[in-house]
Amino acid sequence: MSDTGTPRNVTQKLIAEHLVEGELTPGAEIGVSIDQTLTQDATGTMVMLELEAMGLDRVQTELSAQYVDHNLLQTDQRNPDDHRFLESASRRFGLWFSPPGNGVSHPVHQERFGRPGATMLGSDSHTCAAGAIGMLAIGAGGLAVAAAMAGEPFHVQMPEVWGVRLSGELPEWVSAKDVILELLRRHDVKGGQGRVIEYYGPGLAGLSAMDRHVIANMGAELGATTTVFPADDEVRRYLTLEQRPQDFRPLEADDGATYDVHEEIDLGRLEPLVALPSSPGNVVGVREAAGAPIYQAYIGSSANPGLRDFAVPAMVVKGLRTDPSVSFDVNPTSRQMLENLGAMDLLMPLLHAGARLHQAGCNGCIGMGQAPATGMPSLRTTPRNFPGRSGTREDAVYLVSPETAVASALTGEITDPRDLPDRFGITYPRYRDPDPGDYIVNSQMLEPPLPLEEARRVELVRSDNIVPLPEFDALPDTLEVPVLLKVGDNVSTDEILPAGQRVLPYRSNIPKISEFCFEVLDETYHQRARETGDHAIVGGETYGQGSSREHAVIAPRYLGLRLVVAKSIARIHWQNLPNFGVLGLEFDDAADYDRIVQGSVLRIEDVIAQLRAGKDVTATVDDEPITLTHRLSERQVGMLARGGYINELADRR
Amino acid sequence: MSDTGTPRNVTQKLIAEHLVEGELTPGAEIGVSIDQTLTQDATGTMVMLELEAMGLDRVQTELSAQYVDHNLLQTDQRNPDDHRFLESASRRFGLWFSPPGNGVSHPVHQERFGRPGATMLGSDSHTCAAGAIGMLAIGAGGLAVAAAMAGEPFHVQMPEVWGVRLSGELPEWVSAKDVILELLRRHDVKGGQGRVIEYYGPGLAGLSAMDRHVIANMGAELGATTTVFPADDEVRRYLTLEQRPQDFRPLEADDGATYDVHEEIDLGRLEPLVALPSSPGNVVGVREAAGAPIYQAYIGSSANPGLRDFAVPAMVVKGLRTDPSVSFDVNPTSRQMLENLGAMDLLMPLLHAGARLHQAGCNGCIGMGQAPATGMPSLRTTPRNFPGRSGTREDAVYLVSPETAVASALTGEITDPRDLPDRFGITYPRYRDPDPGDYIVNSQMLEPPLPLEEARRVELVRSDNIVPLPEFDALPDTLEVPVLLKVGDNVSTDEILPAGQRVLPYRSNIPKISEFCFEVLDETYHQRARETGDHAIVGGETYGQGSSREHAVIAPRYLGLRLVVAKSIARIHWQNLPNFGVLGLEFDDAADYDRIVQGSVLRIEDVIAQLRAGKDVTATVDDEPITLTHRLSERQVGMLARGGYINELADRR
Repeated sequence: MSDTGTPRNVTQKLIAEHLVEGELTPGAEIGVSIDQTLTQDATGTMVMLELEAMGLDRVQTELSAQYVDHNLLQTDQRNPDDHRFLESASRRFGLWFSPPGNGVSHPVHQERFGRPGATMLGSDSHTCAAGAIGMLAIGAGGLAVAAAMAGEPFHVQMPEVWGVRLSGELPEWVSAKDVILELLRRHDVKGGQGRVIEYYGPGLAGLSAMDRHVIANMGAELGATTTVFPADDEVRRYLTLEQRPQDFRPLEADDGATYDVHEEIDLGRLEPLVALPSSPGNVVGVREAAGAPIYQAYIGSSANPGLRDFAVPAMVVKGLRTDPSVSFDVNPTSRQMLENLGAMDLLMPLLHAGARLHQAGCNGCIGMGQAPATGMPSLRTTPRNFPGRSGTREDAVYLVSPETAVASALTGEITDPRDLPDRFGITYPRYRDPDPGDYIVNSQMLEPPLPLEEARRVELVRSDNIVPLPEFDALPDTLEVPVLLKVGDNVSTDEILPAGQRVLPYRSNIPKISEFCFEVLDETYHQRARETGDHAIVGGETYGQGSSREHAVIAPRYLGLRLVVAKSIARIHWQNLPNFGVLGLEFDDAADYDRIVQGSVLRIEDVIAQLRAGKDVTATVDDEPITLTHRLSERQVGMLARGGYINELADRR
Repeated sequence: MSDTGTPRNVTQKLIAEHLVEGELTPGAEIGVSIDQTLTQDATGTMVMLELEAMGLDRVQTELSAQYVDHNLLQTDQRNPDDHRFLESASRRFGLWFSPPGNGVSHPVHQERFGRPGATMLGSDSHTCAAGAIGMLAIGAGGLAVAAAMAGEPFHVQMPEVWGVRLSGELPEWVSAKDVILELLRRHDVKGGQGRVIEYYGPGLAGLSAMDRHVIANMGAELGATTTVFPADDEVRRYLTLEQRPQDFRPLEADDGATYDVHEEIDLGRLEPLVALPSSPGNVVGVREAAGAPIYQAYIGSSANPGLRDFAVPAMVVKGLRTDPSVSFDVNPTSRQMLENLGAMDLLMPLLHAGARLHQAGCNGCIGMGQAPATGMPSLRTTPRNFPGRSGTREDAVYLVSPETAVASALTGEITDPRDLPDRFGITYPRYRDPDPGDYIVNSQMLEPPLPLEEARRVELVRSDNIVPLPEFDALPDTLEVPVLLKVGDNVSTDEILPAGQRVLPYRSNIPKISEFCFEVLDETYHQRARETGDHAIVGGETYGQGSSREHAVIAPRYLGLRLVVAKSIARIHWQNLPNFGVLGLEFDDAADYDRIVQGSVLRIEDVIAQLRAGKDVTATVDDEPITLTHRLSERQVGMLARGGYINELADRR
């Protein structure tokens, strides 16, 4: 019950406890204090450069952890040099450091550090996974995370709370992944925008903390601000298993708490689902896609990281052989998960059946290896299947549960796992977590923060591939820029700035990484931008969805991007734009999208004054008037006036 | 005892049993029949294209096996597309196929297929490793291996036999790797040229078949034609363990057998050794290098593939933690090795101590991932440490035993493993192979050859990056060609056709890879050759030295190269030229080199008749007479008359 006596849901409680600015009114900007931060290596090098630029001595959070899980493919010195830089920066600034091979940030963080009631900001869009144990965990651009490390609050528009009531119990061969795929089937990739998804109801009883991680993780694919589960007896059990019972505190909705939006899922009516190529929202029943020969069946990633997600496939294939034409890729979540799988005698059955066992980490989920053959179906338990994200130009990635992946590995074709009893005489394996006495906790490869005096003596280990952030100037009074690129709906940050082995090693080198901007959509963009200078980009719906990478703003900004106009802009990208001095506007009338062509000139007079005056912005397209709108707070307008958040923070320090 | 009553060593017996042309006189060309072939994926795609070009219906060997172990990093569609092509070609031509993740070719072949007394040709320089179990196994260019698959003998100059007598027993913390490092310490990287290394003597009793594999494998680093061990009781035990006792036959030197060259190693006097950066011949005691902080400790590869090579490090680190700043990379040899390690409860100790466990394969040994940080020592149990081979521009790779690698992983610096008892209280682990009843043999991911009729119906699965080998026509009766390029002395195959990540993915695409021809020396060559067609190249001394890559002939031949005239042509390149229909001649008088300029026209009448008539070839340069010479055998002239070895083989079928 709140101070005011109004019953509150879990989301409202978490926000209220951390509120430092604003009010709990959906749509209004609020500032929340941040307890923990999470950074990974693909975004973390930039964060460390930002800390250095701010002159930070030591992180001000309760706990900040730096993981190396993305750039594990070391084809030259660049990635290992970055790893060493991150290790030295963690030592310098007082972070925990998780070295390469230790595991994927989200599940490792949940295992070792997450606690109910805490807020967390992470420079990775799947940070929201920590909502599984009653945290308010939000993905953001690196600069926002760096600011949080320095003790700044995080600003976000107060979301609506979308209550999803779960009832019933999952049938055999149906698991947590199918729950979130069902929500994507119903609402597609925009369904969660401006919302926190809060799960409740009797169906929770059958979902473990790691099952909830699966569901919370892929809330990102719905575009949600984050996902929240209550901290109930299951979370208590989980933290006890992880030998951290002291970190538990109960956190549940008050009796009579209400939600802004309502949804119900009867778990007992779900069936195995699949997101067809090439959108997580393109969901149908596995039966509808069954029969196509596959190249790959792939388990792992932050979207199916639980011990059960590996144990169930292992129990299925025990004593069998997967189809030798199928690349059966097993990507362990963490060292600790692998050790437990081994202790349960469930690692060898996977290997024996034909698995390619990879090092613990993100791997193919972010295009770091494991690319499939041209045009051949690749079934993956990962969260995303955007076109080309796998590394293969003409890819065909299907998102599925571990059960569907392993069934298909056995048959060599897309297979509904409910067919396994008939085809192989396999009964559904009943998984249980090990008893606490048998469960292995291994944190010995996590390096704790150094004591302050020792930390101050640490020198950063820097290679020539780690380049200082470019300086950006303020928006001019009058903006008059040509439209250098016009794109369609659902352009993701993977298309704005690809990941993958070719590009990721330049994450700390903006001049170099900018050469890859938009190359999937228009390989002339980089060169044209170099020649043109200041320019605009026009997008359709959900522009900038997907990964949180702030490079998708910094790199085009470096090339002269000043203005993005779209039908809608995805949340994290929308926040990243003003952080680096780029104005993001939306069409008042979506039909106006058709009035603009590549080469059109957009002109806005008195930009900052108009932004301060209200939501509407009057502009011209090739001298014809057009009305655009903005959702920027006074704080964000201030950043734009200064050329970005980093300039503003530097002023303040 | 030979037919003639002369006692023979093992090498002589193996050659004599397979001799189809020539005599056992060192230096003379001999032809030996080939029982088995081994191909890996980096060279195998070209071999399969050559089989197709020959019109081969089915391999004629006792056994041919195609492994996928090199290009396991799938950052885009090219490698997985190649894997699918190789699988389909293996099915079509009657090969065994070992899919990605199954393991490294050399140890897997020894485990599953090798047999004493057999010959083997492999398109990989470490094919010689199979000498460990009494085989005559030689690495060669792809076309020679393709020809062997078609039933052709392999031609080589009869080597000297270098007898190395082993006595004594290895001390604690010293292992097989130190034996071959000792030979490299004594003789450096050219010490074995023109020789077969044959080991014998009482010291063999303490070396297992997999220890011998370590030693035989790195005979390649001495430049030896191959290495041979006898097939003794240890080989019988080994094949029994591998559940193939029927494949054993004893093969030992006759009493009184002699060797052309003599050497002795007292194993009891060896100490832990290390090859310093950046040559396998740069060997000193580990004590001399000790103390430097390291980035990486790396176990695995064909140069330390044995179960014991992983088990001993596991026993060392059990219950300890490796230094978190060290990347402790564990590269399993094969799925079978991993399963046995797991069954011995020795996989988890490696993981628990901090290992990054990678998929089974060659991995960092061939620069496919695992590159070290700039300038930081990387300790590896791999066979080679040439500069930059790791992928890192300024690398510092040290070749060591598994004992030295794991000792250094524990301390974080280069460490003599004999220090472990004092520093960590560790006693030297006494390793024993599992009993046959406990040993796991897993061949279920090896796909056997299809029955002939089924094989004939197989369609090759070809991506647009796999292009049929161009057809090459015969030398015309009269050759009249312009000199398109004149180069200086010591031009290597790296300058004729570069390697590297930019170029290697096109190894199955001659039209595309030809664009890189000579680009280091003259980037206009490719375009000029396209415009000119038939042409000649003139070179200085040791033209075509370095790597054996046959692409350095195929690609310029594709662009119209007909004739190479040089002061001297390096041996392997000289052999590759007629294989693909290019005539290689040398100046009778080196001073004539100066008479030719770019644009000069070379004319030779009645080419084939002149080659058959003797060593001299009469030609004209811009209508002025010039005398050239050749060293071609009748066999090679026949190839030229048909436009290359492939055409000749195709005629014969």
